[in-house]
Amino acid sequence: MDYIQQRFSVPFEYRVYFTSHLFQQQNPVLRQFLQADVSDNIKKIFFVIDSEVAACHPTLMDDIRQYFAANSEVILIDDMLIVPGGEACKNTDVYVHEIIAAVDEHGIDRHSYIAAIGGGAVLDMVGYAAAISHRGIRHIRMPTTVLSQNDSGVGVKNGINYNGKKNFIGTFAPPVAVFNDDHFLTTLADREWRAGIAEAVKVALIKDKQFYAWLCKNALALNRREMEPMQYQIKRCAQLHIDHIAGGDPFEKGSSRPLDFGHWSAHKVEQLSNFEIRHGEAVAMGIALDTAYSHLCGWLNEEDARLVIQLLIDLGFDITHPLMEVSDDNSPVIQGLHEFQEHLGGRLTIMLLNEIGKGEEVHHLDISLLQKASEWLKQYHQIEQQ
Amino acid sequence: MDYIQQRFSVPFEYRVYFTSHLFQQQNPVLRQFLQADVSDNIKKIFFVIDSEVAACHPTLMDDIRQYFAANSEVILIDDMLIVPGGEACKNTDVYVHEIIAAVDEHGIDRHSYIAAIGGGAVLDMVGYAAAISHRGIRHIRMPTTVLSQNDSGVGVKNGINYNGKKNFIGTFAPPVAVFNDDHFLTTLADREWRAGIAEAVKVALIKDKQFYAWLCKNALALNRREMEPMQYQIKRCAQLHIDHIAGGDPFEKGSSRPLDFGHWSAHKVEQLSNFEIRHGEAVAMGIALDTAYSHLCGWLNEEDARLVIQLLIDLGFDITHPLMEVSDDNSPVIQGLHEFQEHLGGRLTIMLLNEIGKGEEVHHLDISLLQKASEWLKQYHQIEQQ
Repeated sequence: MDYIQQRFSVPFEYRVYFTSHLFQQQNPVLRQFLQADVSDNIKKIFFVIDSEVAACHPTLMDDIRQYFAANSEVILIDDMLIVPGGEACKNTDVYVHEIIAAVDEHGIDRHSYIAAIGGGAVLDMVGYAAAISHRGIRHIRMPTTVLSQNDSGVGVKNGINYNGKKNFIGTFAPPVAVFNDDHFLTTLADREWRAGIAEAVKVALIKDKQFYAWLCKNALALNRREMEPMQYQIKRCAQLHIDHIAGGDPFEKGSSRPLDFGHWSAHKVEQLSNFEIRHGEAVAMGIALDTAYSHLCGWLNEEDARLVIQLLIDLGFDITHPLMEVSDDNSPVIQGLHEFQEHLGGRLTIMLLNEIGKGEEVHHLDISLLQKASEWLKQYHQIEQQ
Repeated sequence: MDYIQQRFSVPFEYRVYFTSHLFQQQNPVLRQFLQADVSDNIKKIFFVIDSEVAACHPTLMDDIRQYFAANSEVILIDDMLIVPGGEACKNTDVYVHEIIAAVDEHGIDRHSYIAAIGGGAVLDMVGYAAAISHRGIRHIRMPTTVLSQNDSGVGVKNGINYNGKKNFIGTFAPPVAVFNDDHFLTTLADREWRAGIAEAVKVALIKDKQFYAWLCKNALALNRREMEPMQYQIKRCAQLHIDHIAGGDPFEKGSSRPLDFGHWSAHKVEQLSNFEIRHGEAVAMGIALDTAYSHLCGWLNEEDARLVIQLLIDLGFDITHPLMEVSDDNSPVIQGLHEFQEHLGGRLTIMLLNEIGKGEEVHHLDISLLQKASEWLKQYHQIEQQ
C-alpha cells in the first residue's frame, strides 16, 4: 500500500491564576502575564462580559478601562460586548456572530486576545467564537462562578447548544490563561455559591480520599460562605481537573471519559426542569443516586454511602427531586440513561464508586437496582426532613 | 504569584494514501483503513460530494453504495450531500449548517466519519463542519484536484469565508485519513490540471533543489498530461508539505509561517479577478514576481531567475497579468501587500529566494524595486509572446 505517514504533537500550556481584584492597578497578575507574552505584533484585547456580572459589578467596565489606560502592553478595544449569562447565551448563535463581527470590525488578529468574564456558559460561548475566528484567537478566561473557577473554566472545551442539544457545536481549544478572581464570588447568590461545590464532591469521591475528608470537615463552613475554605476547595478541585486533562486524553479522541460521576441523570433532570434546577444542584442529586446504587450493587458499604449523602446535606444540597425518581422503565431519568448511551456512541460507560476516592467504570446499569437506589434515597430524604 | 501550570501535548497521526479507483471492490485501501480503526462503537459514514466531481463521475454515488453494501465495517448514511464546488461553497455558511443538520438527523457521533470528496474549497468547508460538530467528528478527505492532492488536502486547516475575507472562520483540525485517488485527475479541465502544479514549483524553489530540477526536466510531460510524472509530482509535493507541518508549528501558534512563497500578491490578484484567475494560476504569477524581485535585490543570479520563469512557461502558465503589475504605490497589488501585513498581525513577513531550493524571509519589500521586478517580468513576457 502506498502512503505517507503524518505524525506530530501539538504542545499546549497555560496557567490558572488565583487572585483577588484582578483589575486593581496594584495587582500585578494580569500585567505580568501580558508582558511575558511578547511578540513583534501589536496586540489588542477585546472583552465579552456576562450581563449578570456586569450588573453585580457596575464599575467593572470602568475598572477595565482604567487598568488598560495605565498598562499599554496591549490596546484595549473600548467597545465591550455584554451578553446574557446562563444557557441563554448558548441557545443561539447570535452572540457568536456578534463576536465574529467585532473581530472583523476591530481587526482583532491571531496575536490578539478575546477575554471572557462570566459564568461557565458565557466562557463556553466566547471560547467557541474565539476558537473559530482566524482559526483561533488567543482566549483568556475570567470565570466568575464557583463552578467555572473549579471545573469548566479551567478546561479545554467550548461550545454552544443546537436544536436543544447541549454543546452540540464546539471545539477543543485550550485558553492561553485563566484568571480566577475570588472577588466575583462575593456577589453570587447562595444557590450559585453552593452549586459549584458539587463538582468538588464528585472529583474527590472518584479521585482523592483526602480531599473528600477535607470536604466533610469543612462542609458547614462552606455552607456558611466562608471564603478561606472556598478558596482551598476551588484550587484543589481545579488542580484535580487539570491533572485529569493533562494525564489522559485532553481532546477526548479515544474512548476516555471526562470526570462525569453522577452526571448521566443530572443532565436529564436539568433539562426536564427547564434549567430551573442548576447544573451543580442536579449533579449533587446525581451523585446521591449513583452513590446509593454503588452501595446497593455491593461496592460501597452502607456507612460510607450514608456519609456521602450527609456531606451533600451539610453543604445545603437537596439529595433528590421528583424528576430524579426511578419508579419503572419509563421514568424520565431512564430516558436520560438511553440518551447518554446514544451520546457516547452506542456503548454505555458509567462511573460508579468502588470505594471512597476511587471511581470505577461499568457498562451496564440494572434498572431494578436503580429503582431500589432511588427508593433508598427517598427514604433517607424523608427521614432527614422530619 | 499563585497559579497552577497546565501543560500537555496532543498527538495527531494520519496517513495520506495514494491509490486509483478507491471505491472499486477489489481495491483494499479504504477497507483496510476502516478495519484498522476498531472501536466498541457502531460507526457511520456520511459523504459530502463536490457537485463538479459528481457531474464528471456520474456513477460515483452508486459506486459508493455498492462498496459499502459489501463492506460492513461502517454503516453508510444513504443520503449524501452534494455541494457546489469552488469558493461558492465557502462564501456562505449554508452548507456548514446543512452538514450539522445531517449530523443531528442521522445521529453521527464522534466515533463516526464525515468524508468529503472534492476540490480544496469543498474539503475546507466540510472539514470545518466536521471539526465543530460534537467538538470534532472524524474527518476523511478525498481530494479530487491536483492542488488539493499535493497541498491543501494533506494539511490541517479548514474554514469558510466571511464578509469577503478568505478563511476568516475555521479551525486547525487534522483529518483521520486522506485518500488521493488519481482517477479523479483524469476528468480535470486543463486549467485545473495545471494550476495545482504551481504549489509544487513553490515548495521546490524554497525547500528542494532536486525536486526543482526534476520539475524542469518533466515540465513539458506534465503539460502534456502524462500521468506518471503527475503522480510523482503530487507525492513529492505532498511529502514536503507534510514534513513542513510536522517539523514546524502545525497549528501556527507562534510566528511560524506556512509555505507561502509567491502568495502575497496571488491572494490579491485572485480576489481582484473575482476568482476568474485560479489560485494556482495566481500563485504562478506571484512566484514569477517574487523571483524577479529576488534577482533584482541581489539574491538570485539572472540565469537562475530566467530558468524559474521558463519552468512556469513550460508548464503552460502565464507569468504575469495586468492586475499583477506594479506601476506605483497605488497599484492594486500593493494594496494586497498592506492587507497581507494586516492579516499577519502588523509585522510583514515575505519569503524570497536566497538561491534555488532555499527560501529566506524578509520583513520589508521596497516598492520601487517591486516596480522594477514587475517591469522586468513584463518585458520577459513580451519577448516570450513574440
